[in-house]
Amino acid sequence: MNAGNSALRPPDPGIVFESINAYQRSAALKATVEVDVFSAVGAGDRTVESIPKATNASPRGVRILCDYMTLSGFLLKDADRYSLSIEAATFLDRNSPAYFGSAAYFMLNPDLIAGFQDLSAVVRAGTTTLPEQGTVTPDNPLWVDFARQMAPMVHPSAHEIAELAAGEGELRVLDIAAGHGLFGIAMAQRNPKEYIVALEWARVLTVARENGCQFGVAVRYL
Amino acid sequence: MNAGNSALRPPDPGIVFESINAYQRSAALKATVEVDVFSAVGAGDRTVESIPKATNASPRGVRILCDYMTLSGFLLKDADRYSLSIEAATFLDRNSPAYFGSAAYFMLNPDLIAGFQDLSAVVRAGTTTLPEQGTVTPDNPLWVDFARQMAPMVHPSAHEIAELAAGEGELRVLDIAAGHGLFGIAMAQRNPKEYIVALEWARVLTVARENGCQFGVAVRYL
Repeated sequence: MNAGNSALRPPDPGIVFESINAYQRSAALKATVEVDVFSAVGAGDRTVESIPKATNASPRGVRILCDYMTLSGFLLKDADRYSLSIEAATFLDRNSPAYFGSAAYFMLNPDLIAGFQDLSAVVRAGTTTLPEQGTVTPDNPLWVDFARQMAPMVHPSAHEIAELAAGEGELRVLDIAAGHGLFGIAMAQRNPKEYIVALEWARVLTVARENGCQFGVAVRYL
Repeated sequence: MNAGNSALRPPDPGIVFESINAYQRSAALKATVEVDVFSAVGAGDRTVESIPKATNASPRGVRILCDYMTLSGFLLKDADRYSLSIEAATFLDRNSPAYFGSAAYFMLNPDLIAGFQDLSAVVRAGTTTLPEQGTVTPDNPLWVDFARQMAPMVHPSAHEIAELAAGEGELRVLDIAAGHGLFGIAMAQRNPKEYIVALEWARVLTVARENGCQFGVAVRYL
């Protein structure tokens, strides 16, 4: 949305309004993921008659949302049938192996976006105006959401890092602030002789433990 | 931000993250207008040393905000000096006759954006989930803000409409939901024989009255 080439064209008030209303794009994308419209369209429900049935949502709500998502480039519309853009098909359809739509839940968590509610005060102060510590209080349950919701987008980089950091024989890996534990798990999957110790708050470790079980990897937890 | 040409390129996760984080663009633009950085830069304060002094804001906050607004296309940066994009110079610098930055206050008023806080529930219900009437309760003071903050962007269209609707001799114009009153005022400015009656809630009429005085136009108010 860079305005660019300012000197070569008349001023466009649309650029200002597009930025003022940008928050609606965040809200609409989150709603489309939450109502799971992308998965419904990906599974073949492509019309304003069938998508509401598949998602248990209102036909009016779905119609307005899908038309907005078409303007935003995540859906395509041909006559009365919607289809997925390549981004929606790859990253936002739950049936895609590269799905990470749940990241929208975490990244738009009310506790996280609260820091943007009065950005003028932040700019004047030069630092956050939220209470001290905020989301980094010990054992804050937000980081359980983080571990669950952000995990799907980590797999590719976790496996790439495991490849780069690969060693032979017995190695010990300390995974500090392990979260979902997927970085250590990827290393242990590659080399079963690697010995992973995950350091994390207790509540979050439950998620790393689940992932360890799921991928059949033994991880010690601190 | 249309994804476009989906079939011709690999999926770009950046498009998803850009939409998830779009709300930050709205917050940053509002803050830049509120702290009045655009007017400071327009008046010649162009560095991270001088802008904070002119705006009474923190150097750290101003630096981060200005760099973000550069990426967003509203500021340009050359070495350590910022300048205004043509949109910022025209619409967001208070010293520009076409300034309408105050629209960001109204359009991002917490009462108005509240409807987007749980858009999934809205899509499921097919209608707003806010309390009945919401911002249209009689005499809601929000519309005083509307009349003040949205007025600057109305002048061009008000004068164009006055031209299109122009008559000769004595005409009577009823301006229903007059708000700032600028549409009727523009007509009366063009033809002093026009007799304008503005219909509006009492609190909002005070703004129309002020504008009538400012432009030397007699308007009757209902």
